Amino acid sequence: MNKRIEYWFDYVSPYAYLTTQVIEELAAKYGREIEWKPMLLGVVFKATNSSPLTLRPPAMARYHQHDMERSARYAGLPFVLPQPFPINTQNTARVCLWMKEVAPERVGEFTRGVTKAYFSGPAAFNDTVWLSEYVNQMGLDGAAAVAACNDERYKEQLRSACEEAIQKGIFGAPWLIVDGEAFWGNDRLPQLEKWLEKGGF
Amino acid sequence: MNKRIEYWFDYVSPYAYLTTQVIEELAAKYGREIEWKPMLLGVVFKATNSSPLTLRPPAMARYHQHDMERSARYAGLPFVLPQPFPINTQNTARVCLWMKEVAPERVGEFTRGVTKAYFSGPAAFNDTVWLSEYVNQMGLDGAAAVAACNDERYKEQLRSACEEAIQKGIFGAPWLIVDGEAFWGNDRLPQLEKWLEKGGF
Repeated sequence: MNKRIEYWFDYVSPYAYLTTQVIEELAAKYGREIEWKPMLLGVVFKATNSSPLTLRPPAMARYHQHDMERSARYAGLPFVLPQPFPINTQNTARVCLWMKEVAPERVGEFTRGVTKAYFSGPAAFNDTVWLSEYVNQMGLDGAAAVAACNDERYKEQLRSACEEAIQKGIFGAPWLIVDGEAFWGNDRLPQLEKWLEKGGF
Repeated sequence: MNKRIEYWFDYVSPYAYLTTQVIEELAAKYGREIEWKPMLLGVVFKATNSSPLTLRPPAMARYHQHDMERSARYAGLPFVLPQPFPINTQNTARVCLWMKEVAPERVGEFTRGVTKAYFSGPAAFNDTVWLSEYVNQMGLDGAAAVAACNDERYKEQLRSACEEAIQKGIFGAPWLIVDGEAFWGNDRLPQLEKWLEKGGF
């Protein structure tokens, strides 16, 4: 059995941002590793006729934005909803896929750092110049990372990932699969932890 | 300020069933009482163009039913999804409104017991004969409870409650309001408890 935890996310998902900050540590506590699976929620939403929470009818959209802010405070993390929101994160996802090949052990650090920068205030998110500098600051090859954004290899990997997500019935993020069991939402981490602790429940 | 916690729910909501079992004890821990606010989710859903989770597209519906079952196990509670689901709960809600007038201190006990019976297996839920017997077994007047189901007084109270819910921006259950702060979902009880403990956060 795959002992790794599949972690499906989009760099633009506020709740995935919260999960991203803690998931590696949580997994390690139970001897598990994370398989980082970036996807594009826009593609997944289209397949399931869903939509971003902040674009729902006014009362719902207001509640969800407030809940994002409060959930971040609850987690002790900064949170500023990016404007505009949502935005397409295909460049960031492709850099992630590139890093999974050239420096797989750094993907968690990259994903935590990038999402924290994005949700801490104005950030040139998904901007190739910004990404290049970020990767350079990690001591990796920023130019190669940016080249990956326009490389058919990573474009195809990202398309395949979205297809795989849809085929697995994934319709939101964060989405975690452990021992074949799916958990959707940052608020399901306590159940996921119980699953890891008990080997299912 | 209203120190009571407004608890909006529908007797047919699986997640409200989970909240119902623990909310009075949680409130009491922080010196609060519950104001039981039954509503009809069907009316609220219509106003917000929403729908029951089990009637969503297949992948979503499957996930949600599984999540209901797992969330009940996580809480150590029995769970059988009623068939058919959902069903209209106007009779149960009207008995609740009647009890709020004649025996307000029993409403929590009634709501815990009725929802537990409903989600433990085949139950004649919302059936006036069943409700009459249930209320009799509580030592209250079952015949009067059933009369309330067809009493314009309680029909009007329930209509008003749904109107109030919509005006407050409520679009799901369980929905809790404490000190003006809204919490949606059984999975927000940890945040609600932190709110009660700290007086906001």
